[in-house]
Amino acid sequence: MERLPGFRDFYPEPLPHPDVWSTDARQFIFDQWRTVAKRYGFREYDGPPLEPLDLFTTKSGEEIVGQLYNFKDKGDREISLRPEMTPTLARMVAAHERNYKKPIKWFAIPQLFRYERQQKGRLREHFQFNADLIGETDPAADAELIALLIDTLRGFGLTDADFVIRLSSRNAWQDFFKHGGGDSAHEYEFFQIIDKLERTPAEETEKKLSALGFSLAQVTQFIEAGRPTAELESILQNLAARGLKDFVKVDYQVIRGLAYYTGVVFEAFDRKGEFRAIAGGGRYNNLVKLISGGKVDLAALGFGMGDVVLLELLKARGLLPKFDSPMDVFVLIEDETLRPISLRLVHDLRGAGYAVEYPLTPAKPDKQFKRAQELKVAFTARLENDAYVRIRNSKTRDEIVTGLSGAANHLG
Amino acid sequence: MERLPGFRDFYPEPLPHPDVWSTDARQFIFDQWRTVAKRYGFREYDGPPLEPLDLFTTKSGEEIVGQLYNFKDKGDREISLRPEMTPTLARMVAAHERNYKKPIKWFAIPQLFRYERQQKGRLREHFQFNADLIGETDPAADAELIALLIDTLRGFGLTDADFVIRLSSRNAWQDFFKHGGGDSAHEYEFFQIIDKLERTPAEETEKKLSALGFSLAQVTQFIEAGRPTAELESILQNLAARGLKDFVKVDYQVIRGLAYYTGVVFEAFDRKGEFRAIAGGGRYNNLVKLISGGKVDLAALGFGMGDVVLLELLKARGLLPKFDSPMDVFVLIEDETLRPISLRLVHDLRGAGYAVEYPLTPAKPDKQFKRAQELKVAFTARLENDAYVRIRNSKTRDEIVTGLSGAANHLG
Repeated sequence: MERLPGFRDFYPEPLPHPDVWSTDARQFIFDQWRTVAKRYGFREYDGPPLEPLDLFTTKSGEEIVGQLYNFKDKGDREISLRPEMTPTLARMVAAHERNYKKPIKWFAIPQLFRYERQQKGRLREHFQFNADLIGETDPAADAELIALLIDTLRGFGLTDADFVIRLSSRNAWQDFFKHGGGDSAHEYEFFQIIDKLERTPAEETEKKLSALGFSLAQVTQFIEAGRPTAELESILQNLAARGLKDFVKVDYQVIRGLAYYTGVVFEAFDRKGEFRAIAGGGRYNNLVKLISGGKVDLAALGFGMGDVVLLELLKARGLLPKFDSPMDVFVLIEDETLRPISLRLVHDLRGAGYAVEYPLTPAKPDKQFKRAQELKVAFTARLENDAYVRIRNSKTRDEIVTGLSGAANHLG
Repeated sequence: MERLPGFRDFYPEPLPHPDVWSTDARQFIFDQWRTVAKRYGFREYDGPPLEPLDLFTTKSGEEIVGQLYNFKDKGDREISLRPEMTPTLARMVAAHERNYKKPIKWFAIPQLFRYERQQKGRLREHFQFNADLIGETDPAADAELIALLIDTLRGFGLTDADFVIRLSSRNAWQDFFKHGGGDSAHEYEFFQIIDKLERTPAEETEKKLSALGFSLAQVTQFIEAGRPTAELESILQNLAARGLKDFVKVDYQVIRGLAYYTGVVFEAFDRKGEFRAIAGGGRYNNLVKLISGGKVDLAALGFGMGDVVLLELLKARGLLPKFDSPMDVFVLIEDETLRPISLRLVHDLRGAGYAVEYPLTPAKPDKQFKRAQELKVAFTARLENDAYVRIRNSKTRDEIVTGLSGAANHLG
């Protein structure tokens, strides 16, 4: 029996097959995400992986349904696996924001699902680190969030030679569009042309732009000038004060595809341009109001960082640690009459916090020793008799004989 | 907009409403599960939350479909959210067992889903700690797994006054049934009568039993005698050697509902009998063979422990810690000209591993101080000028003035 296409099985290392994923690497990434988020004062939340379908269509329009894992449940409800976390966050914040001091700084690590019928072979789920800051309009909030993004990537050992945050603003593009005589009814259409600039032939872009009263030369000039708005200037200064100047640059080519961004937008890219964006985000000051039906109005911004591109990047840069079996001690049982006391030793050492393995059933001494070596244990322990144990340091080969109750003291 | 019935929102503590759940408590429980599993040498795996429907019907028959979150995807596949983890584990083990030394000791913390139409108000998802041991028939494997179950609960501070493992065996019941002249075609029917014994009126049980050629008196006598089989005796001795004798008792009333158990079965109960079973499991020696279509034949056993009953029990016993905001330092910014250098200090302290908060925008000193108190920070830090910082220990009220670069050394 096979798993569904686009889904992943996660195995312990070493991996048995190139087609499966590593639980150890996943946990390494999740731990790092949590660690840095907490240093920044972000608290963890989570919501259901299933939500009412209209939570997603309210935000993104009916056209998103083609990309959703949506269905009707046995109670005749239209529901969907979550394709992103922001609508759930907006729903949760709107429900209980009064109980939390502003700004609210929250993060989550949801598994997200998309069903795109045409793209066979592509993943239909991934995990995403989501960090959001809610209830603050000042660019200081944008700087705090971008600093978190930078430090999260730095935490993995990536440097400013590996990645850069391309910083942009829909406000800057709005001004450009307005001053160039654009019709506000076509503003989002214009944004989408910019979003696809890098992937579209110049001729086609020129045609589309001219339909809206603009030229490619105008647009290119605006991007190349890259003159920061006041908000971007403020963010750049804030990040420079933290010592993070070299991790960020203004790049108006970034505008983000989603309809709901309202101000600053940004993406994290690898400098070599080998991968898709590592992370992306921006301001969505109107979304909480929209989701709450007008009841709660809070400015907000956030970013998402997926596990798949990050893992590829860390592998390519040699930054993924080797995940050996994490055992500390192997208790050898060569004399079966000593098994009960050996079991007690195993239990006591585990109780003292050590990861301990032993032969579950009688086995030849050389087979036991080989297994201990495979597990790369730091120590082996073997009962001398019913009162003393011989402990051997696998690296130094030093041995010591100690009373049973004192064994844990010799596993420094 | 509301979340779906039966699903949970997880918020940071303190909780805003009795109707929502705590991410902090959830993480506390997950961390403890992982910690103890690793001490026992169990490695983490995970599979997709969605699987082909027939993975579950192969194992449990078509009648399980009524309890599943199942649907047809856009590629016309019959699929289902996972109601349990064991079929996925069996699938994954069967696919790559050759790459792993036996016995395989694996754990997972999946979110599981059940759609039971009639039970409104009940949860339709929960998280479950699953630990399984595969490739060993000896009762030593059963003892190792049950020891893990006991130590997991002990790790939360629960003692033998709080819970007990009720140990039983389908082999014992099989013998009873066979020697009593039972027809093997009705064996599983008989098991289900035993499983429902505690919840069924005696008269009804008597009637059902007599149809199979048994009496309630016979059954009651067998349970009350509670004579351990050789396998159970071996497990009891093994656990006694570890010092865990008082955490386990033979109780043939336990037989477990699922069809696929083949030998030892067990459940963890609170001694006061206030809650549903805390955990349950047993041997399923035929399942890997069944799921793999006969290709791989491995003995196996495992248990599952849900987060919901465990959380209720820990709350009732006062064993859930208080989850304060986990901030170490609040950097006060009273002089806005010092904001850039303060940001640098914030950044350096976070880089040194501390959880640091600060006023995102200009705020009155007393408001900042109040916020620092609310966050229960261990230290406050305030720049004296552009080179020196005053650090205050919130508890002792000791203050020290130090150069900026040495600040982290004073946060012991």
